Amino acid sequence: LSKINNGVMTVTGLYALVGIGMEPRCRCIKTESRRIGSYIQKVELFPPSPQCEDTEIIATMKRSGREICLEPTAPWVKKVIEKILAK
Amino acid sequence: LSKINNGVMTVTGLYALVGIGMEPRCRCIKTESRRIGSYIQKVELFPPSPQCEDTEIIATMKRSGREICLEPTAPWVKKVIEKILAK
Repeated sequence: LSKINNGVMTVTGLYALVGIGMEPRCRCIKTESRRIGSYIQKVELFPPSPQCEDTEIIATMKRSGREICLEPTAPWVKKVIEKILAK
Repeated sequence: LSKINNGVMTVTGLYALVGIGMEPRCRCIKTESRRIGSYIQKVELFPPSPQCEDTEIIATMKRSGREICLEPTAPWVKKVIEKILAK
């Protein structure tokens, strides 16, 4: 687990792209199922792009700074985002 | 206008925090009123925190990589986020 590394993210559940000469693809392989809403410091939304056809959501945790992939279709994830927007 | 600078963002409309010894505060001073939804590469949502009591939304633009503050209460901003989540 480490933070953003010159533009290429290396995090739990993300695919390490640098140094193995692979074509850049999606950032997330697996997503967090536990409801971690209250521990979120920031949420990043990545719309589909030429590199990755999926919407990806990556939360950064408050204390640890860990970056965790969230499931875009999960109702609790949508609620977390709605709650942030409603504040 | 520049990109993320060792964790402290320096962008149009954002307050340069590093090097002037100021207490970290909100990232956004003003927000973009033009509807830039289709040019967005990424959206960052920052819930209120001890440093900033406002929700802040920062979009990164596709081509330029510019970071632009969006108004969290603007209906078009909420639509952009809903659209990303719906994809």
